[in-house]
Amino acid sequence: MAPPGLEVAPSSPEIQKITPLDAAAAVVEDDATSASSESIATAARDRVAVIGSGNWGSVAAKLIASNTCCSDLFDDEVRMWVYEETLPSGEKLSQVINREKENVKYLPGVKLGSNVVAVPDLLNAVADATMLVFVTPHQFIEGICNRLKGNIRQNAIAISLIKGMEVKKDGPCMISNLITELLGIDCAVLMGANIANEVAVEKFSEATVGFRHDKRAADKWVRIFRRPYFLVTPVQDVEGVELCGTLKNVVAVAAGLVDGLDMGNNTKAAIMRIGLKEMRFFSKLLFPSVRDTTFFESCGVADLITTCLGGRNRRVADAFARNKGKRSFDDLETELLQGQKLQGVSTAREVYEVLRARKWEESFPLFSTVHLIATGALAPSAILEYSEHTPRQITSSQIQYSSL
Amino acid sequence: MAPPGLEVAPSSPEIQKITPLDAAAAVVEDDATSASSESIATAARDRVAVIGSGNWGSVAAKLIASNTCCSDLFDDEVRMWVYEETLPSGEKLSQVINREKENVKYLPGVKLGSNVVAVPDLLNAVADATMLVFVTPHQFIEGICNRLKGNIRQNAIAISLIKGMEVKKDGPCMISNLITELLGIDCAVLMGANIANEVAVEKFSEATVGFRHDKRAADKWVRIFRRPYFLVTPVQDVEGVELCGTLKNVVAVAAGLVDGLDMGNNTKAAIMRIGLKEMRFFSKLLFPSVRDTTFFESCGVADLITTCLGGRNRRVADAFARNKGKRSFDDLETELLQGQKLQGVSTAREVYEVLRARKWEESFPLFSTVHLIATGALAPSAILEYSEHTPRQITSSQIQYSSL
Repeated sequence: MAPPGLEVAPSSPEIQKITPLDAAAAVVEDDATSASSESIATAARDRVAVIGSGNWGSVAAKLIASNTCCSDLFDDEVRMWVYEETLPSGEKLSQVINREKENVKYLPGVKLGSNVVAVPDLLNAVADATMLVFVTPHQFIEGICNRLKGNIRQNAIAISLIKGMEVKKDGPCMISNLITELLGIDCAVLMGANIANEVAVEKFSEATVGFRHDKRAADKWVRIFRRPYFLVTPVQDVEGVELCGTLKNVVAVAAGLVDGLDMGNNTKAAIMRIGLKEMRFFSKLLFPSVRDTTFFESCGVADLITTCLGGRNRRVADAFARNKGKRSFDDLETELLQGQKLQGVSTAREVYEVLRARKWEESFPLFSTVHLIATGALAPSAILEYSEHTPRQITSSQIQYSSL
Repeated sequence: MAPPGLEVAPSSPEIQKITPLDAAAAVVEDDATSASSESIATAARDRVAVIGSGNWGSVAAKLIASNTCCSDLFDDEVRMWVYEETLPSGEKLSQVINREKENVKYLPGVKLGSNVVAVPDLLNAVADATMLVFVTPHQFIEGICNRLKGNIRQNAIAISLIKGMEVKKDGPCMISNLITELLGIDCAVLMGANIANEVAVEKFSEATVGFRHDKRAADKWVRIFRRPYFLVTPVQDVEGVELCGTLKNVVAVAAGLVDGLDMGNNTKAAIMRIGLKEMRFFSKLLFPSVRDTTFFESCGVADLITTCLGGRNRRVADAFARNKGKRSFDDLETELLQGQKLQGVSTAREVYEVLRARKWEESFPLFSTVHLIATGALAPSAILEYSEHTPRQITSSQIQYSSL
């Protein structure tokens, strides 16, 4: 998507302050891309491996494969690690994917590209790969990284499409940090307003690449993912982008509850706004470097909107409220998602652990209430009882940045 | 709505920078309210007049009447100026409203309160009023103010619920400025995520009061509008709040076009995000004092969401796209809105006049495209052709702040 393009010469301070960070980034990105094309072309071709083959992983493989095919920058073949399953037909999932070029279980009806190869052995999948795309359920990531340790190229770069956090005793750990710590390689993130099934059928949408320092790597990730119907913007705020992708699922559960209570658009918009506000404050408390403008990117407000309009978290929470909380989220997930996993409820639990450890529960009424509703401690209608809350103020003494 | 409540002692700079402006404002507002209650009570009772009796005007009268009744701060009676019409039954609209306590034409089925009095004579309606609520179609406001000139209390305060701008030769003029200029009184604005018909049936929602300097007046407006189901937050950014309420209708037209093209949630979320981005940049170009945080308030992201999910602009634009632009907006408006007016299309024209006068059209592809689609110069599907745009950069020399 073309940015409004209000960026101006740095020599113009009064205008400079209204320069859109994102537009500026996009322009720099484009310049950098064309400028660096030659030098990249002369280097060895990059080889991409996709670690994960669920709904979003399969769409990621399709996006990447359509960019690597016939490119002089990338190896044509895209290996996709498949957690092997036996289908009702008795065949192995990886064999069917390689024969049909289609993930018949998690993305039926969509061809992934002739250059996508499903590989059930993890180390075989990443052999010689210089670009690693992590897109597994987040609870598996630590085990996968431990198996990869010492078995990947040391010049490899990584990107995480995974929503969620690992909550450790000494605080939360973002997936991108976990990958960097365990494998010793740079890890960016890609998040955004992209319901997998809509991107799969090439409906126009956007995404945000969050990076820490390595702009050159960010440019590579933009090039490997973007399509005419899938616009990707890089932002130097990896924690902000990753937390947007993680926390929005908690807000989507709240939005689904509002839908299930038949409360209408005003109420849903109010709950989404309150959720976005808690996302911003939670992120900035954990990482003071997080930028407000990141929440205006696709990973922020747009992802929140699309996830609260469609998406599995909204859908299951809607059913949960219509069943007045009598059927558990696990139960409804099994019935409604055909093996896909619900992220909002587990993220709400992880967020709640962080809030409780820091005594911040009352300062985040929406996040706390979603968790307490999911565990059955509160009725679904409690999502609407904000006007009765009087959040406790956090004083500086209660916030230990050192522990974050 | 309870703010996340992260506001902290000013003595804590590193935390201070993450203090939510809005939460801080809300807290100050509450303190100020309780602190000033006594002094207000000892003063003469305020008398409220609602100038306008359409769909939103009728809901405003209901909200206000439920706060003035049995209050020792306000006169019980709320006069509502009605632009007199003869109903099919042959009766006058004002007479039916006063008999039924219901606006049978613009808000059927909702009781306004026994203390609401419909008055067809404008000067009679505002007689002795100290608080003037303007909620008419914006094209009538200048004429109304000219008739009021010299016929209102000089200590009166005003608030505008009107979406839209007056575009003059020397630039755009906000309605609140127009009222202040013509009547010489302070004018705040109230905007937010509130589809009139949902507020009318008391579904939970929020609003934002934008004020310039007069915090005491802002507190009065908050008190006169807020209900347990209608939460109001004051923000010191009158232009930002007013422009949100005005510009979001243009984005809602774009969102309706996307719906009419059956493009799905990703695309709609992307268009809404791009629209919010153009709203921010347009507002900050016109008024450098506008704050980014205002767009996180109910008047910003929440109003955008609710207006793009429901609302008349979205609805008519959806029909326009489904008719492939063969039926005009005027035509569809007459058929679908039973006399209510569509604001997005006229605002898009006014915005386009500002863009053209400053040669900014190419820097605001969404705003420009909406206008060109509405006039038939482009097909409805053009709303999706952003990736082909390369916005021209605005250089400082092209922006004459002096003329704004």
